Amino acid sequence: MDSSLTAVQFGVGPIGARIAQSALNRGVEFVGAVDVDPEKVGEDLGEVAGLGEETGVIVTDDADAALSADPDVVFHATVSSAEAARGQLETILEAGANVVSTCEELVYPWRDHAETAAALDEVAREHGVTCLGTGINPGFAMDAMPVVLSTPMESVESVRVERVQDAGTRREPLQRKVGAGTAVDRFEDEVAAEAGHVGSPESTAMLAAGLGWECDEITETIEPVVADETIETEFLTVEEGEVAGVHQVARGYVDGEEKLTLDLRMAVGLTSRDSVDFEGSPDVSITVEGGYHGDVATSAVVANCAPRVVEAEAGLLTMLDLPLPSVVRE
Amino acid sequence: MDSSLTAVQFGVGPIGARIAQSALNRGVEFVGAVDVDPEKVGEDLGEVAGLGEETGVIVTDDADAALSADPDVVFHATVSSAEAARGQLETILEAGANVVSTCEELVYPWRDHAETAAALDEVAREHGVTCLGTGINPGFAMDAMPVVLSTPMESVESVRVERVQDAGTRREPLQRKVGAGTAVDRFEDEVAAEAGHVGSPESTAMLAAGLGWECDEITETIEPVVADETIETEFLTVEEGEVAGVHQVARGYVDGEEKLTLDLRMAVGLTSRDSVDFEGSPDVSITVEGGYHGDVATSAVVANCAPRVVEAEAGLLTMLDLPLPSVVRE
Repeated sequence: MDSSLTAVQFGVGPIGARIAQSALNRGVEFVGAVDVDPEKVGEDLGEVAGLGEETGVIVTDDADAALSADPDVVFHATVSSAEAARGQLETILEAGANVVSTCEELVYPWRDHAETAAALDEVAREHGVTCLGTGINPGFAMDAMPVVLSTPMESVESVRVERVQDAGTRREPLQRKVGAGTAVDRFEDEVAAEAGHVGSPESTAMLAAGLGWECDEITETIEPVVADETIETEFLTVEEGEVAGVHQVARGYVDGEEKLTLDLRMAVGLTSRDSVDFEGSPDVSITVEGGYHGDVATSAVVANCAPRVVEAEAGLLTMLDLPLPSVVRE
Repeated sequence: MDSSLTAVQFGVGPIGARIAQSALNRGVEFVGAVDVDPEKVGEDLGEVAGLGEETGVIVTDDADAALSADPDVVFHATVSSAEAARGQLETILEAGANVVSTCEELVYPWRDHAETAAALDEVAREHGVTCLGTGINPGFAMDAMPVVLSTPMESVESVRVERVQDAGTRREPLQRKVGAGTAVDRFEDEVAAEAGHVGSPESTAMLAAGLGWECDEITETIEPVVADETIETEFLTVEEGEVAGVHQVARGYVDGEEKLTLDLRMAVGLTSRDSVDFEGSPDVSITVEGGYHGDVATSAVVANCAPRVVEAEAGLLTMLDLPLPSVVRE
């Protein structure tokens, strides 16, 4: 990454903190940080984000003030909903800054959030800057990566993408969030509504677009992963028959036929991996042994895409529009 | 692929024929075909390329005549050497046509063929067209693909890419070319000089550039794969102790340290696969089970990249410069 990039961290929660670290590792210079949490406002970004060093940048709840430092790029990590993020993103774009956001629905908002997408695209173009939503999932493992892996194929009939994440290696709030240790009959009320991964329809729509398809329907289901033995993690115990986590499947239909299946399991006691299976000419099967780790990978994808976003044409882009991404490239 | 693309097939050998088929499958309209083989000149492209149908396009040895049809893109498949291809490519670019070439050294010519690269880049820019070298290898499996797969990593320490191709499933000339059935003591004289895969240094340099490195040295070795049992293919028999094929290893050194290892085996009796192993933060291991098939994949990559090349900025580009490739996208 070009070490001369300046940035504002917009949202200094757990993911925002990791992004800040990832960006600092690449020589990015922070010139501002925004968060609404009164406990963070007035503190040094380095302290709030647990960076182990002072940055000299004080967290403020005044976005305009932070943006007045005229950063090359803003790392935006606040909410999952495109509509909820819209106001913040417009503020950033109107200040003339490029933005890379972890907002899940922004990764491919053109299908289900078309009005918001069009509005952001217009503001970005007006101000000559670029807006991108990305992350490991949505943004890479279940959408951009399978798109690229189709390049050597003569044709694709259907694609099945699986992502299995062992929640047992993740932080406690995530283990609680996926319902680990909940009774199965309470899954629907207590877990399903809250724990669901946001972004699967967006991944499905992006993957379809990348393969030259348009989905006439995208469906999504969420069910519990049920423990078939006792599972102990650092933080909790799941008894046999209790919920170990969530299993979400998004299906994309093209001309009435299921062409895309995105199968995501996040539970304690699983063996993490990512895989992509194409039926087509020829069939192709790819496995990422151990999978891309959720937390590390999201901040890495965001930080690694920043230089490309700064150089890209103006507008609301998706990962399909950027030059070949990579770990770092000047 | 945009079905309104018009194309000229430049070189109608085995690979050129496959590319023509692949492009026709995507609705490309051929407006010309060039080959120097007197047995092909004057014949219909469909017949020469074994397409199973007449195209109405007659193969000519007069490149200027074929190019006067003003194609959107030229599929160039003649030679492996960038210097040998230069004159043909200049003719194409000067005619104002974009070109996708299978010339192995053109895939990343900036390191070892810098003068040719600079000259082609200049001609392409002058005429407002784009020139890209690509294919499955070099062009994707051992360079562009690993580059993309690094995107979710915090940092990369080193990368090992392996490509294993079972030559037993390929056509007879390829099995002969890799030396299958040759005595080991004749490998050096009869196989090594002729059978080597061209493009490993280019893949190594491209992969390095994609990861933000520059190699101070790239080395290459070629050794026989020796059969440890009798292997029979449709075309020949390899006795135990005879040559089954070739094993080529390219190594890229950064600041004196081996950072990139590209290990390619092409022999009868192997189990095909592609794999990428990163050491870094975190380690990542990816396997393509069964590997991308050499013949199918090369023509698919070329045909799939054509629409992006037509839309790209002018100049000599590499796969690192194009938007995210995929099987097809309008």
